[in-house]
Amino acid sequence: MATIYTYLGPEGTFTEAALLQVADAVQSVRIPAANVNIALEKVRTGEADAAMVPIENSVEGGVSATLDAIATGEPLGIIGEKLVPIRFVLVAKLGLLLEDIKSVSTHSHAWAQCKQWSDRNIPHAEYLPGSSTAAAAVGLLADNCPYDAAICSPLVAEQRGLTVLADDIGDVADAVTRFILVSKPGALPAPTGSDKTTLVVPLPEDHPGALMEILEQFATRGVNLSRIESRPTGQYLGDYFFSIDVDGHLAEERVADAVRGLHRISPQLRFLGSYPRADRRGYSVPRHHQDKAFREAYTWVEGILKGT
Amino acid sequence: MATIYTYLGPEGTFTEAALLQVADAVQSVRIPAANVNIALEKVRTGEADAAMVPIENSVEGGVSATLDAIATGEPLGIIGEKLVPIRFVLVAKLGLLLEDIKSVSTHSHAWAQCKQWSDRNIPHAEYLPGSSTAAAAVGLLADNCPYDAAICSPLVAEQRGLTVLADDIGDVADAVTRFILVSKPGALPAPTGSDKTTLVVPLPEDHPGALMEILEQFATRGVNLSRIESRPTGQYLGDYFFSIDVDGHLAEERVADAVRGLHRISPQLRFLGSYPRADRRGYSVPRHHQDKAFREAYTWVEGILKGT
Amino acid sequence: MATIYTYLGPEGTFTEAALLQVADAVQSVRIPAANVNIALEKVRTGEADAAMVPIENSVEGGVSATLDAIATGEPLGIIGEKLVPIRFVLVAKLGLLLEDIKSVSTHSHAWAQCKQWSDRNIPHAEYLPGSSTAAAAVGLLADNCPYDAAICSPLVAEQRGLTVLADDIGDVADAVTRFILVSKPGALPAPTGSDKTTLVVPLPEDHPGALMEILEQFATRGVNLSRIESRPTGQYLGDYFFSIDVDGHLAEERVADAVRGLHRISPQLRFLGSYPRADRRGYSVPRHHQDKAFREAYTWVEGILKGT
Amino acid sequence: MATIYTYLGPEGTFTEAALLQVADAVQSVRIPAANVNIALEKVRTGEADAAMVPIENSVEGGVSATLDAIATGEPLGIIGEKLVPIRFVLVAKLGLLLEDIKSVSTHSHAWAQCKQWSDRNIPHAEYLPGSSTAAAAVGLLADNCPYDAAICSPLVAEQRGLTVLADDIGDVADAVTRFILVSKPGALPAPTGSDKTTLVVPLPEDHPGALMEILEQFATRGVNLSRIESRPTGQYLGDYFFSIDVDGHLAEERVADAVRGLHRISPQLRFLGSYPRADRRGYSVPRHHQDKAFREAYTWVEGILKGT
Repeated sequence: MATIYTYLGPEGTFTEAALLQVADAVQSVRIPAANVNIALEKVRTGEADAAMVPIENSVEGGVSATLDAIATGEPLGIIGEKLVPIRFVLVAKLGLLLEDIKSVSTHSHAWAQCKQWSDRNIPHAEYLPGSSTAAAAVGLLADNCPYDAAICSPLVAEQRGLTVLADDIGDVADAVTRFILVSKPGALPAPTGSDKTTLVVPLPEDHPGALMEILEQFATRGVNLSRIESRPTGQYLGDYFFSIDVDGHLAEERVADAVRGLHRISPQLRFLGSYPRADRRGYSVPRHHQDKAFREAYTWVEGILKGT
Repeated sequence: MATIYTYLGPEGTFTEAALLQVADAVQSVRIPAANVNIALEKVRTGEADAAMVPIENSVEGGVSATLDAIATGEPLGIIGEKLVPIRFVLVAKLGLLLEDIKSVSTHSHAWAQCKQWSDRNIPHAEYLPGSSTAAAAVGLLADNCPYDAAICSPLVAEQRGLTVLADDIGDVADAVTRFILVSKPGALPAPTGSDKTTLVVPLPEDHPGALMEILEQFATRGVNLSRIESRPTGQYLGDYFFSIDVDGHLAEERVADAVRGLHRISPQLRFLGSYPRADRRGYSVPRHHQDKAFREAYTWVEGILKGT
Repeated sequence: MATIYTYLGPEGTFTEAALLQVADAVQSVRIPAANVNIALEKVRTGEADAAMVPIENSVEGGVSATLDAIATGEPLGIIGEKLVPIRFVLVAKLGLLLEDIKSVSTHSHAWAQCKQWSDRNIPHAEYLPGSSTAAAAVGLLADNCPYDAAICSPLVAEQRGLTVLADDIGDVADAVTRFILVSKPGALPAPTGSDKTTLVVPLPEDHPGALMEILEQFATRGVNLSRIESRPTGQYLGDYFFSIDVDGHLAEERVADAVRGLHRISPQLRFLGSYPRADRRGYSVPRHHQDKAFREAYTWVEGILKGT
Repeated sequence: MATIYTYLGPEGTFTEAALLQVADAVQSVRIPAANVNIALEKVRTGEADAAMVPIENSVEGGVSATLDAIATGEPLGIIGEKLVPIRFVLVAKLGLLLEDIKSVSTHSHAWAQCKQWSDRNIPHAEYLPGSSTAAAAVGLLADNCPYDAAICSPLVAEQRGLTVLADDIGDVADAVTRFILVSKPGALPAPTGSDKTTLVVPLPEDHPGALMEILEQFATRGVNLSRIESRPTGQYLGDYFFSIDVDGHLAEERVADAVRGLHRISPQLRFLGSYPRADRRGYSVPRHHQDKAFREAYTWVEGILKGT
């Protein structure tokens, strides 16, 4: 039976571009969702097998909606990640030239990321917020569209045959967004030697060293952090959880040991997954943090306890 | 000469409510700005003396636009903070009842924060993104307004005499937003015994212990962190700076010493200000981290170096 | 078959006093040994079942001979400890009064510990080093003994019927020496809830943080150090090992986990034993460092790895 | 006026050999002292200008008498250090051959260090403790000397024209002892770029992390420890102070800053001196721990506090 995918829609968003990188997604059912929460809910209810949602943007930072949605509610698991270079294009109503553009719509984040280009090239254009880049683009096809142009992905421009007035208009050259593929919790993807593990760690107590205690669990096992984001729990100012990515797979002893250490000091810890890195970048682990060193230590202590 | 204030507008936003808490702001000039960057730019150019902007929301987390805008560009200084309880109201076109509402506009964050109420009370209403809660509310007064209702602050409802269909509709009971008052760098507000210091610390190098080294600078001087936010520098995935609030004033030795330690390991550190806490909450400092202990240590070492 | 004990002799030393605290030692064979190495060698060869030797003195510090002898060579295990209050007496040849004493012999450590008393009461007496306090005392019974008096334990004075000219002459009121009972490695004594674990940890590398890395293994598991002694390896200046006592038994998870951590960073680590504390003092372990927390963390991670 | 030196005597000890390395000591008055305390007391009373005493032996470890004597009482300052290779010789009464030796005297530490040689070459010789290697050697010249041979330094053998039966008989090839030159506290020797600083740090409180807090003061400033010795305060078991050598001079900012930090957490800290290293070995200091980084940080914070 074919896999059913959902993603942060509508069609033509960068998220669909990420999903299309998944091997079997091109031939599969792809259901756009109106927002991240709806996409994840489809997975929780079984309506979809997996959801592709954005988690981190090199310019805008963590995607709060995703970080928060996977940190609470019915547990979910991350089974993969994809990177999509973010290239914006300006599309317009048929027949309009750049100098004719009086108003532009797009998602507010996209608008922010093309600000310098807009100031230079369409300084007098009014901005109308859109619910997504793709929605703004598709809106241009409607009869009574209240704006002249939209900023969107090359994918939707191509899908809908929209006129591209300007290409690659983002202010930051190498902007990239990271997306995660989320399913119900289950067997972990096998370790590949270049993996990532994602955790959600509530700050156990509001004291000066609480965050340091969390970080020490990684440091004493030589586990490298590749991302750390603080997010409010929503309860009161200063009540945080941390969304953390580390290098390595839970099946590697040093990661498992660090996670066990975290579980002791912050038992509400949530394990979100171990999965292959999109960039396939490896990491070197010092001898004393390798599985062999862990197993030897384990065996050695067992031997003493058994009196052998 | 009267102080000229600017703030994240339009009129009637929660930010204006925060500004109105400042002693002389009621009688002063208050210029609304279209976004945080514009507000801060008015201060940088001298068009305004100070700007009130949101920095942190107990539900939504750090306000990225503000965190990023004060972390870069021409230096600015925080001279005060204000807390505003976030209470949302639903306002509508004259004559409409709750059951008549087919479409609602508001800022996307406000929409997210009233999601549960909307699902229960206006489940079929379409959502149209607005550039701010106040803009959405004011839009209702226009002749051809494309939506029926708006979610906004009580302030703008009162200022514009709008019909309130429902009050206190936020999903989280005690939501509160923290705002900062920003001016050009200058003399620091005097220490009050209940102060806060805000810093921007670029992660010096991409290695496992870099964040721990930063935190140790505080820990070894007994300086408590009350907020830490990671933000992308915008350069590439995984390149961060940290926005940090600590308890205490730079005129206190333990804070100055920690800041000096940070400056050594991360010389691009930005000091954003020491200012009175809005909640007036005090903090106890152990004897060995008090100014007296620092001065005694300083004098003692000086004595040895002078051979006395 | 009765246990055969050896101890740092000769008869009448404080070490024999420690051995006599062991339940079955009074009726057992007790073989005095000329020095710590010989006593331990008797255990290694099987000539004796266990040896009592001093390890730490509250005035003089660690007993280097013992620390070094158990840290190298054929492995041994500590199975118990005893505390002996150190009370010195001055014994003399028959018929002599305090004012007649022209020369005194004793072990150099005992001489050091009675220095103030000697300076006040027998200021002109010459000091002759003795190989032990008991040997010096017993020497007085020989015909041609070259000294008039000896400083020794009350035990030997009583055993040999020597004339005590002055009692309790030590300079420090509550001096106490700690002794350990050493046997071949085997089954550990059962945990009692008030135990001690002794380790020998070579400094893994000569770098600034090496000792800190060792201490962190304990700190991150809430394991308290009750003794730490640096000892040279004898190879070159600055090449150390550390002799460490911690609160707790290897059968307690937090101790086992810390020991495993140490084994990874310093594989030449030597485990010397877990045994009941002589002072029966308990220790409180925070919830997150208790066995239950370790087991829950272990089970939790196993569950994830099995995909359940 | 010529400098008056004292040293741990008698004449011909390794300590005198260390003293003779001091430039002007050969022509100066050199007063042997019976023990370390007496030598240091001569400095305290002004009877001598400086005292040479042993502090650390690569085989035997720290010299407790010295560590304790400089850690308490009227303050003293270390102004230099010397290294002496430890080479032992066996000297005997005139006319005796190796096979004639029935008894040997020497200091107990020297005996311990030549144990393997003695077991192989004079297995049946009785050992008589001596108060020093030199005293044992000189004793051979007395008419009624009760022993046949002595283990001593080449220096005393040469000074007294004693017959050397065996040379270089120590069990460890490259044994070396470190000696310190101690005077009254005063102006510190000028920094040379290869210096050492010696500190005495009482453990502030008996809690798990107390030693770590001390070490962190060094670690956060990049100050390397080259020696750490625990010593009992003599009060009760487990009450320690630490004798610590670090790389660098108090006139270097990172050392001064670490010492200030220590003074805050352990105000009874004793500074014993900054002086040139005997081995002239240099040390590299990372940019962010160099004086320049400290001064820049200091200036930067001052600028903010002055509002400039």
